[in-house]
Amino acid sequence: MTERLYLFDTTLRDGQQTQGVQFSTAEKRQIAAALDALGVDYIEGGWPGANPTDSEFFAGRAPTRAVMTAFGMTKRVGRSAENDDVLAAVLDAGTPAVCLVGKTHVFHVKTALGCTLEENVEAIRASVAHCVAKGREALFDAEHFFDGYWADPSYALACLKAALGAGARWVVLCDTNGGTLPAEVGRVVGEVIAAGVPGDRLGIHCHDDTGNAVANSLAAVDAGCRQIQGTLNGLGERCGNANLTTIIPTLLLKEPYAGRFETGVGREALAGMVKLSRQLDDILNRVPLRSAPYVGASAFAHKAGLHASAILKDPSTYEHVDPAVVGNERVIPMSNQAGQSNLRARLKAAGIEVDPKDARLGRILEVVKAREDQGYAYDGAQASFELVARAELGLLPEFFEVKRYRVTVERRKNKYNQMVSLSEAVVVVKIGERKMLSVSESMDETGTDRGPVNALAKALGKDLGPYQAVIDDMKLVDFKVRITQGGTEAVTRVIIDSEDSRGRRWSTVGVSANLVDASFEALLDAITWKLIRDVGRPAGAAS
Amino acid sequence: MTERLYLFDTTLRDGQQTQGVQFSTAEKRQIAAALDALGVDYIEGGWPGANPTDSEFFAGRAPTRAVMTAFGMTKRVGRSAENDDVLAAVLDAGTPAVCLVGKTHVFHVKTALGCTLEENVEAIRASVAHCVAKGREALFDAEHFFDGYWADPSYALACLKAALGAGARWVVLCDTNGGTLPAEVGRVVGEVIAAGVPGDRLGIHCHDDTGNAVANSLAAVDAGCRQIQGTLNGLGERCGNANLTTIIPTLLLKEPYAGRFETGVGREALAGMVKLSRQLDDILNRVPLRSAPYVGASAFAHKAGLHASAILKDPSTYEHVDPAVVGNERVIPMSNQAGQSNLRARLKAAGIEVDPKDARLGRILEVVKAREDQGYAYDGAQASFELVARAELGLLPEFFEVKRYRVTVERRKNKYNQMVSLSEAVVVVKIGERKMLSVSESMDETGTDRGPVNALAKALGKDLGPYQAVIDDMKLVDFKVRITQGGTEAVTRVIIDSEDSRGRRWSTVGVSANLVDASFEALLDAITWKLIRDVGRPAGAAS
Repeated sequence: MTERLYLFDTTLRDGQQTQGVQFSTAEKRQIAAALDALGVDYIEGGWPGANPTDSEFFAGRAPTRAVMTAFGMTKRVGRSAENDDVLAAVLDAGTPAVCLVGKTHVFHVKTALGCTLEENVEAIRASVAHCVAKGREALFDAEHFFDGYWADPSYALACLKAALGAGARWVVLCDTNGGTLPAEVGRVVGEVIAAGVPGDRLGIHCHDDTGNAVANSLAAVDAGCRQIQGTLNGLGERCGNANLTTIIPTLLLKEPYAGRFETGVGREALAGMVKLSRQLDDILNRVPLRSAPYVGASAFAHKAGLHASAILKDPSTYEHVDPAVVGNERVIPMSNQAGQSNLRARLKAAGIEVDPKDARLGRILEVVKAREDQGYAYDGAQASFELVARAELGLLPEFFEVKRYRVTVERRKNKYNQMVSLSEAVVVVKIGERKMLSVSESMDETGTDRGPVNALAKALGKDLGPYQAVIDDMKLVDFKVRITQGGTEAVTRVIIDSEDSRGRRWSTVGVSANLVDASFEALLDAITWKLIRDVGRPAGAAS
Repeated sequence: MTERLYLFDTTLRDGQQTQGVQFSTAEKRQIAAALDALGVDYIEGGWPGANPTDSEFFAGRAPTRAVMTAFGMTKRVGRSAENDDVLAAVLDAGTPAVCLVGKTHVFHVKTALGCTLEENVEAIRASVAHCVAKGREALFDAEHFFDGYWADPSYALACLKAALGAGARWVVLCDTNGGTLPAEVGRVVGEVIAAGVPGDRLGIHCHDDTGNAVANSLAAVDAGCRQIQGTLNGLGERCGNANLTTIIPTLLLKEPYAGRFETGVGREALAGMVKLSRQLDDILNRVPLRSAPYVGASAFAHKAGLHASAILKDPSTYEHVDPAVVGNERVIPMSNQAGQSNLRARLKAAGIEVDPKDARLGRILEVVKAREDQGYAYDGAQASFELVARAELGLLPEFFEVKRYRVTVERRKNKYNQMVSLSEAVVVVKIGERKMLSVSESMDETGTDRGPVNALAKALGKDLGPYQAVIDDMKLVDFKVRITQGGTEAVTRVIIDSEDSRGRRWSTVGVSANLVDASFEALLDAITWKLIRDVGRPAGAAS
């Protein structure tokens, strides 16, 4: 016997309150389509009338399986619901559902609205009744409900009952300040249900100001509440809203929720959770949070040696769910804490099988450790790690040798009297017996100087004879630099992320007191790794 | 009547399991000192013997008020505690406390250890007894306790009781996989206490794999547990550990904890929480999480119009705690009055008084916003921010003008057939009417090439006539580089930290598609800022 639990997504409304986030109409459409495919029950699209992008989004929206919802606020005191232009703009969006926020806390009624307690209750009743009369499904967001209930439980309850009495499908308990803790949420939800508000008409809306938005939402469900409001990736005002990217996997996979509740999200959509989370980060140009539950790149990364060796025997030893179920992957990173079994698993993933008794495994770990002491870091640079291991195993082909290079950056006035810079690189490479000298500058098609590392990359890629097509297929997508300790000296560590047309992404590391030199080392590793994948052995070598 | 609640920090041990994190010994010392100043009760410093950095850290550690703790594991079956070399290495670190992890889950005893259930209980007993006999305070980390308790409650309890019986000060319930939910944690902790394990000898160790590490820790405390283990900024294996940066403010500021419990953290240390969180991010070159509870840059950012206007009337309307109490700041969009008063406070800190009605305040905010759109970031570069404001206020002296520069990095074989690099910089500068051409190379006294930015700095400092002594007094102490978005293009952002002999430390920012150019911009800002402080006005200018 399963019970229905409803998911209400407010990424497009409360999520847009995130500092630095401003969705375009096109982005809103893209996210709405993704949410609909996920299977949430409600999509709150914005506040029509208050925000031009929101009005535009509602006007041109595509049909959705989810109930499209417009957000607004209860009518102002001193005018009728019919004559409130703010409310009218919300209804004009023509959505099947309308969610109106209103006060339930005596302090806020007095300080923010400046009206009587009775006038506020009447505003709630009349606003909801007006939406229902217009044929809309009505939701009432009870702002500051938990603080309000603490201050005056009977008044807070009276507000909920006014909304329900006027025909609201849902009343939603909002922890607007995010300050309520899970035990308190559970207690209050229980009391609200005991006071006669049915759990299947009760929603919960939490913020993460104490790091408890997810736990608060679950505590409300445990106490009987049947609608959860949240956002993808936990976007939202201040510390964000309850993260649906976390809550949905928990509801579908974990006891006591799995099997007990039914939501609109199926197993197939669940397997797209990582992709959906990344899609939103891509739209917002945000760096995905590695440590995010379920969907983060580190969520199933087992760094401790003890953990990694047990994982190899049985993944359930250190994983509470199977990463594939949410579309994620297991990662066994390298570091000097890693044991040999960890190392073998990593090599196997790169297609290299080594016998557990092979003494070279110990040597690889020693080399890795010695290099980490010099400032290298391999758990963020798996491709460079593979090259170190290959070198020890005699499996590192020498595709080419860099004999020397020179790179120059010059900044001076151009003929229009503007300061401009230009970088130029000369690289001398030997492939087999053939010596080649290439020169390149770093100007891109817009006339911007992309700097010395770019110039070096271009010079290297320019005349690499048999390898050129392979190298042309590479793109430098990220570049991280930090000063670190190498032995007793400060050195620069550069990590380069590269990508190719097959969608492969790999990271390499270089270390030197000289920034350009460290970058060049990481760049050479990136090219070598790709040549191993795509070419296999040096041009002209016997097969 | 307050009750004592103990805080156990494992940033240096479990925090080091974070993917991409590898502390140096010096960094470990710096973090230990900061943790000690915060007032945690225990600092777990690492696993001596398993990790050379950890052994080195323990060997040279400074005395701390907190109980320094070494981590290890219970002795292996088949040898005595006295003859276990892994355990011996842990004890050899000479810490007052030792925390040993061991199995309590029948499945893990069988699959991972491959011994009998009785042998495992005996290993726990003997290991703890051995530590106690050596005069150490012993803690037992009960790995996978919640899963183990679910599988076989009496065996899991027997393991705890073996540790306590052998003299362990604490037994710590570890949710090693991070898969347990708050209601379950509360239930199990309650049952463990009911079964005779005193709450004041019971610790909790949670991971964030379901986003509930904080809530699980609080649920354990609610049920009677009196030690919380966690890390700064929630570092740790996979999704991280319980975040002490979140938990500590909640314990000190929120009902039902505030006033009921006493910890070693005082109000003054609490006010340094934001600074401490940033310090750790700085050490790790990680981007601080804006949405982090209490300490994030957005934690008190009020973007919603309704919220911002209410906040101006009374901050308690939309803030659950006062941001100043944790050392944070309220953020209100720059466009309105509150943004300007914030700006005036920052200028005042730099010794610049501006009238609140001065229209230039609005212009400064516009320039800052426009430059942030280009990729600049002024949060971490106060000195550059001051220069932007000075330029708008007409308070930016021009000490010198850089006419042009050229920097070359060359790598080739030396006469001993080793690959070596050398950087050389030429800078042409105008001071007043005088034009000066300087050249410098980047070799340091050990013969190491310090790279192009170093060569540029040296060339600039070389012949700056009247300013040379001032510039000689500067040292570049940190250098952070990140690829970021500037408009529609990827650009490089460089932040340079400089220091002088008076112990002043200041940060400047440069942005360009060209890494060297961005570095040079940050370097020029750093020099200008110091000249303003030490020289005041350009040489030869009227006083």
